[in-house]
Parts: sequence; C-alpha cells; structure tokens
Amino acid sequence: MTEKTATYENDNIFAKILRGEIPCHNVYETDKVLAFMDIMPRSDGHTLVIPKAPCRNILDINPDDLTAVIQTVKTIGKAAITVFAAQGLLIQQFNEAASGQEVFHLHFHILPRQEGVELRPPGIMAEQDILAEHATKLRNALG
Amino acid sequence: MTEKTATYENDNIFAKILRGEIPCHNVYETDKVLAFMDIMPRSDGHTLVIPKAPCRNILDINPDDLTAVIQTVKTIGKAAITVFAAQGLLIQQFNEAASGQEVFHLHFHILPRQEGVELRPPGIMAEQDILAEHATKLRNALG
Repeated sequence: MTEKTATYENDNIFAKILRGEIPCHNVYETDKVLAFMDIMPRSDGHTLVIPKAPCRNILDINPDDLTAVIQTVKTIGKAAITVFAAQGLLIQQFNEAASGQEVFHLHFHILPRQEGVELRPPGIMAEQDILAEHATKLRNALG
Repeated sequence: MTEKTATYENDNIFAKILRGEIPCHNVYETDKVLAFMDIMPRSDGHTLVIPKAPCRNILDINPDDLTAVIQTVKTIGKAAITVFAAQGLLIQQFNEAASGQEVFHLHFHILPRQEGVELRPPGIMAEQDILAEHATKLRNALG
C-alpha cells in the first residue's frame, strides 16, 4: 500500500457523522468510540463500531483507541446476540479497497447471524424506522 | 445461544496446538497469544491469532486477553501487507457455527488481499513447505 492510500481524508461519511454533520442511529458512545447502525444492514442488528480518532483503518490506529474499539465490539456483540436472538456473531473489518473497505475511517462490522439465514446482499438501504427501532433495542439492552 | 454452546471444549484443534500435541507453522508468540499460518489459506499469508487462554470466542474472553489479541492482529497484519505485497487486509472473526466458526477456540483471521484476486474457496489444504516459507517470511519481517 502506498503513502497516498494511508492518508486520512476528513470528508468521509463517518467523519461527518462524528462531527454531527449527518445523523446516525446512535447505539453507544464514549470519549473514544461511537457505535451506530449500518444503514445497509446485511443482517438485522448490523452495527458499526468506530474510533473517534481520525484513523483510516487498523494500520494507523493507536493502541489505546484500538483497545477501546475492540472492547466495545465485544460489548455491543453480546447485546446484539440477546436483542436479536442470534445464534452466531460475525465480526469483520476491511482495510483498503482491495479488501472491501468503502468508507475510509476504521470500522468494525458486528453482524448477528441466524442459522440458515444468508447475509443480505450488500448495498440495500434499510427503512429508517426499523434502524431506529433496532438502535433503541440495543441501547436499552446496554442499560 | 445456549449455555451448552458457551462451553469451552479442551479437545479442539487449537487447544492441541497450544499444548504442543500437534504442530503449527508458528509466526509469533507471547505469554498471552499465538499466531500461526492457517493450513487452509484463503489467500497467501492467511494467518490466525489466538489467545492462549481457553476462550471459545469473543464472548467469553477477558479484556486483557482480547486487547493482547487485537494488538497482535494489527502487528501481524502490518507485517503481512509488506511480506505479501498486499493492497488490502481482511480481518474476520466468527462466533458460533451460525456465523461460520468451525474451531471453538477464539481466533482472528488475517487475510492479505490483492486487487482483482478472489479469496480461494474454503477447505483447500496448502502445501506444508509453502506454509513454512510464509511463516519464515513473516517471522523475519517481525524481527
């Protein structure tokens, strides 16, 4: 990967969410991390966890922020299993376009899985009211 | 997920590797983690990072071990990009069979990705000498 691809760009959609310029279905927030619903969920409860620090991907995040992110992935993952009565949980994280990264701010995908239910194809936008309901259920489960 | 599925079973293949009962192509090791080549690599350099503690998946690992695992994923991932001249890096972690988990000891997959090169189908065993060569390259890159 070249120097160019390692650059953080401030106009990515998650940077805009962090600046409050566009809304998200907020699930959980600390001084270091934000979790919110993926607007194109590949399974019910598909949630993203991102650092608040400007990190392009796992290669340029500092150790403290990475620790905060992965501990949050575990916390949200546990809650998502309960809320969505899941039998499994898929964690994915893509670095650079060659791996499938589309938004160049580090994010971990948390996908509740049900036995015998395939992931939805990528790129299908969910209804906003369903995302809002799922976010509310997750927030309530997280206390 | 039921109580039963949350149980750690000592006879899984990674527990046997940790006990030295079966060999692996060792890449990196600390008191908390082990990294080794996946014997059915879906891309060149496909490496696994596991905790030494007996954890079934991300749901039952303690915070210190999880931190050690994810920091190691970053370290190995960076080395793998260099060694395999990758343009991307895919990180995956499966919890329970419904998500694709096959060995019930927590493991993170690290997959170097090349643009335009699909992942290999699962279940195809690599030649041992190729895995040994890849492990050596990774160990050398890690210094």
